[in-house]
Amino acid sequence: MTVANHFELLGSNGAARLGRLTTPHGVVRTPAFMPVGTIGAMKGLHWREVRDAGADIVLGNTYHLMLRPGAERIAALGGLQKFTTWNGPMLTDSGGFQVMSLAQLRKVTEQGVTFRSHIDGAKYELTPERAVEIQRLLNSDIAMQLDECVRLPAEPVEIERAMQLSLRWAERSKRAFESAPDGYMLFGIAQGGDVPALRHASARGLIDIGFHGYAIGGLAVGEPQEVMLAMIEEVAPILPTDRPRYLMGVGTPEDILEAVARGVDMFDCVMPTRNGRHGMAFTRHGQINIRNARHQDDPRPLDEESPWPAARNYSRAYLHHLVRANETLGAMLLSEINIAYYQTLMRGIRAAIEAGTFEEFRVATKEGWAKGDIAPR
Amino acid sequence: MTVANHFELLGSNGAARLGRLTTPHGVVRTPAFMPVGTIGAMKGLHWREVRDAGADIVLGNTYHLMLRPGAERIAALGGLQKFTTWNGPMLTDSGGFQVMSLAQLRKVTEQGVTFRSHIDGAKYELTPERAVEIQRLLNSDIAMQLDECVRLPAEPVEIERAMQLSLRWAERSKRAFESAPDGYMLFGIAQGGDVPALRHASARGLIDIGFHGYAIGGLAVGEPQEVMLAMIEEVAPILPTDRPRYLMGVGTPEDILEAVARGVDMFDCVMPTRNGRHGMAFTRHGQINIRNARHQDDPRPLDEESPWPAARNYSRAYLHHLVRANETLGAMLLSEINIAYYQTLMRGIRAAIEAGTFEEFRVATKEGWAKGDIAPR
Repeated sequence: MTVANHFELLGSNGAARLGRLTTPHGVVRTPAFMPVGTIGAMKGLHWREVRDAGADIVLGNTYHLMLRPGAERIAALGGLQKFTTWNGPMLTDSGGFQVMSLAQLRKVTEQGVTFRSHIDGAKYELTPERAVEIQRLLNSDIAMQLDECVRLPAEPVEIERAMQLSLRWAERSKRAFESAPDGYMLFGIAQGGDVPALRHASARGLIDIGFHGYAIGGLAVGEPQEVMLAMIEEVAPILPTDRPRYLMGVGTPEDILEAVARGVDMFDCVMPTRNGRHGMAFTRHGQINIRNARHQDDPRPLDEESPWPAARNYSRAYLHHLVRANETLGAMLLSEINIAYYQTLMRGIRAAIEAGTFEEFRVATKEGWAKGDIAPR
Repeated sequence: MTVANHFELLGSNGAARLGRLTTPHGVVRTPAFMPVGTIGAMKGLHWREVRDAGADIVLGNTYHLMLRPGAERIAALGGLQKFTTWNGPMLTDSGGFQVMSLAQLRKVTEQGVTFRSHIDGAKYELTPERAVEIQRLLNSDIAMQLDECVRLPAEPVEIERAMQLSLRWAERSKRAFESAPDGYMLFGIAQGGDVPALRHASARGLIDIGFHGYAIGGLAVGEPQEVMLAMIEEVAPILPTDRPRYLMGVGTPEDILEAVARGVDMFDCVMPTRNGRHGMAFTRHGQINIRNARHQDDPRPLDEESPWPAARNYSRAYLHHLVRANETLGAMLLSEINIAYYQTLMRGIRAAIEAGTFEEFRVATKEGWAKGDIAPR
């Protein structure tokens, strides 16, 4: 059975791709960075700020949402878009990754994974079918198959076992998704750790099953950046050019730039908000630690040429003070500044691909980061 | 020496007064509620939200700001209005109240108070002169004299000692403020606990010294509401009608309504933001605990007729979820909703005084609170 295609490849420049993905809740311009609204909220940001920053789509975490407030409850309240007021495209993960990292007493079988909630110890089972059902209840525009993600380094035999299990779960996920209305999407996830042959086998297996889009999973889990990029280089060329490609859980601005250069279309990461809560700001001068004493008397903004007002309108001295005094507004402003920086980066990437100048953009952007912050005052 | 007057009494209705206070950074409509931006930030709110909610003036805490980031640093950065980007009228307290409640190893002498910072144990001295100096460095539109506030219940002899000391400090504060530029203001603070004769003596002593405005301090420190209102009734009639009157640290919406009815013009309190952080929402139906399980499946907003968007646009179920999941956005939204409710109340109070219908407004508003929240769904 052919799978409907909602992705349009608008152009390319080298391996970098410009596209448009149409979801039931709106259009996503790719390459796209999806801010992570973990438990139905973006930490420290209002939804209007996420949209104003330029995000077309956000990610929600199935694991967190199934525990609290619960998928059935969100369904009764009209789905995640309406519940949160985001009202735009949403992708949800399958829950598998966070079961592995957060839940207690987890046990993986052929059937699925059982675990206890990290909140109250209650017992849950997540199967490929239940993961799809939950994501349908959440009304996710893009659902992800349940997979088993192995932390690297790992033995090849263990990587292969998890990859083969994930493939069987991929098939069950697809069957479970067949009743979803037109327009909604399910992505398969290529696993295979750092073993090229396993990556190839995983990608080919997924393509045989057939999905609306393809994710590359199990990266950014402890391996060096060059391993991650090498694995993208193994997998991306195999994937169908007419389908979106999503690199899960990645990453730094540089990771994103390099992955786009290798043909990836979609990204998500908690880094902009998490680092923002810890006083780190992403800028075109690289990452700036606003807690550093060099900023405490500096009346200059983080970046006076930023298109985002908060990066222009608050002094480094004020941001430094807020972070040092542990004021919520510090985390709010830095999270917003970081989300906006990521979106500015994606906008720049898309414009450069369209103009056929992606390589120049990549070089210039990396030079800006390497040059570092403006001199202390 | 006469003290310049920047207050204009525009009208009254019973004892309730409508006025306009002109500060170097803008006009304050009274009765006014001043949200508390403790350490140079409003917890959980952007400054634009504070302004959009209708606040003309905010309060900063001298104690917190002198410790971190330091008054001299804020002065070098252009003052508190510029530092924070609030850019509007600001009142600062003298620091005395928080020295009593937060600092360690404090010691009160005729000269002033010495204490150790609750942050790092560093030793500080706050005299009437230094309190004025700090507030001038902060560039406060309205500075407060240093006083000693006694927690109730207390012995009359102790209340009198602190009141007399505060009067002597009032005189020193006024001398220290003499070099301030035109337009900036210093308020004296009437003390005297719950002893009418001491309240009278304090107010008369302050009037003899002469201030731009008069505060009633040492209330809402543990006494019943009727004692607080009785003390206002003792003091307000003594105060000059052409000067603003500020009831410090008060309070609940009902406290404010009752104090306005007794001739008070200005208020401040951390309650809207603090209660917001704990899941409590102020509405025209009274206070609502959004953590309560009755809200968890309720798609209705807190108050569909609220003039403030956040009170209309988010479901009770979503707010409940955010608070239960300890998401920052929950505290952000409830703090903002509460600040907006307080400002809506003040707007209603001012309109009613102007229309000569304050008594009807007071009755109707209290009926709304007493009727309580809408029925569960």
